[in-house]
Amino acid sequence: METIEQRVRSNFSQQQFMKTLGAEMISVDQGTVEIQFPYRAELTQQHKFVHAGAITTILDSACGYAALSVAPEGKDVLSVEFKVNLLAPALGDHFIARAQVKRAGKTLIVCSADAFARNGTQEKLVATMLATIMTIDPQSR
Amino acid sequence: METIEQRVRSNFSQQQFMKTLGAEMISVDQGTVEIQFPYRAELTQQHKFVHAGAITTILDSACGYAALSVAPEGKDVLSVEFKVNLLAPALGDHFIARAQVKRAGKTLIVCSADAFARNGTQEKLVATMLATIMTIDPQSR
Amino acid sequence: METIEQRVRSNFSQQQFMKTLGAEMISVDQGTVEIQFPYRAELTQQHKFVHAGAITTILDSACGYAALSVAPEGKDVLSVEFKVNLLAPALGDHFIARAQVKRAGKTLIVCSADAFARNGTQEKLVATMLATIMTIDPQSR
Amino acid sequence: METIEQRVRSNFSQQQFMKTLGAEMISVDQGTVEIQFPYRAELTQQHKFVHAGAITTILDSACGYAALSVAPEGKDVLSVEFKVNLLAPALGDHFIARAQVKRAGKTLIVCSADAFARNGTQEKLVATMLATIMTIDPQSR
Repeated sequence: METIEQRVRSNFSQQQFMKTLGAEMISVDQGTVEIQFPYRAELTQQHKFVHAGAITTILDSACGYAALSVAPEGKDVLSVEFKVNLLAPALGDHFIARAQVKRAGKTLIVCSADAFARNGTQEKLVATMLATIMTIDPQSR
Repeated sequence: METIEQRVRSNFSQQQFMKTLGAEMISVDQGTVEIQFPYRAELTQQHKFVHAGAITTILDSACGYAALSVAPEGKDVLSVEFKVNLLAPALGDHFIARAQVKRAGKTLIVCSADAFARNGTQEKLVATMLATIMTIDPQSR
Repeated sequence: METIEQRVRSNFSQQQFMKTLGAEMISVDQGTVEIQFPYRAELTQQHKFVHAGAITTILDSACGYAALSVAPEGKDVLSVEFKVNLLAPALGDHFIARAQVKRAGKTLIVCSADAFARNGTQEKLVATMLATIMTIDPQSR
Repeated sequence: METIEQRVRSNFSQQQFMKTLGAEMISVDQGTVEIQFPYRAELTQQHKFVHAGAITTILDSACGYAALSVAPEGKDVLSVEFKVNLLAPALGDHFIARAQVKRAGKTLIVCSADAFARNGTQEKLVATMLATIMTIDPQSR
């Protein structure tokens, strides 16, 4: 039988946009997920900071996979909506999103996530997300 | 003297993440901006739809540039926060974000934006954003 | 058979908090609702403006009833989440929220709404909401 | 000299809408605030639960006062925007909002807050907020 981690990692490996960002899944547990990517010039905006859209992408994916890790077996998940606050310029050698489930209902799962810029061993909070995810039957897509 | 359109397009051309997405600025006017990218497998999630993060990126950029188009001359802009509702799977040959300024204050500018999936000549609403942008002095970065 | 308007107005009349605010339903149509209350000192914050919470309340109710007006017959609705931008001080003789359905799905309905302060015949935009509403079976509560 | 707590409580006491809700400030510390009100029929929606607007009001006020508690002396604060997720029906004998500052910048302060329904000694999470607050000069209003 597939473990939660296998199920989440298998799904993640099918997201081509994660490869485009150079993102990898650092950890998966029941209700928590970490996703990280290294700095690359291809991901920047006009000030050489990483674009808010790239940071939002790993926050969204981390929330979605945190939700998937607690969803009933056989269910898939879909992002309904999210809000992001950008707290500091995304400047660092790596960027990591850490998501946790805040409340899991039958249909809807609410997650929060923080994104950090890492410079060597130091971390700085750069963004935070509050997201709503829906559980769906795989065939309903 | 630089026109609004020149100022916005010059800034846009410095965003490397826009090139990574294959995005181009379709139109710029005072308070409205359109940004578009074509479908590419590199931008997809596990269902072959375009990733919500890629759609969010052009919504965020369109809001930021709509704000820049009405900001006092010499000011730069910064995304403070945004909320996105994902309304339908992002399936199409092109994806276009259309942003408009909702209210421009001295310090904060609020914009809304819709994202559409285009299939030939047909368009379908796939996401909507409500965003807060701050005007800043270029040197304050 | 109950019309949409009767159904919405009957539900509204059971919301005691609307009476506390002095709010009334101005108009109901398929997918659009208007709710209004007059200025009263009991609803103000420290600057004598109407409290953001009172404005948010009629925005939320207007979105919920706009969603109910398009929900399948026999279904009830529930606010899942909303985001509000406060655009100007809520100063006027009346405050009106106007909501419209942006997209109606089987389970989720997304609405947007604007709130205006009225001074005589003049109106000023003071807040805007983007909201997610869920359709539910009445017995599921 | 006025302490942080005196400054926050003095401001709170001028919010008439708080009296209308029967709300009181339970605790104030640097960066954290708690506000509570008891159940009253006047605050309910059609299912006899407390209206989301009343819960949102104390979440918003708690975020605003948490921001005020860390704002530079002499500055006032203003809610820019907030997002609320409604997580469970607001059913209980008391409702409490607990806010904390997430990041304090020079111009903008980001706060998060949770609302709980209390039944005797038990608490249940019913809503969560992520909010942006702006510091302003008192005379600028």
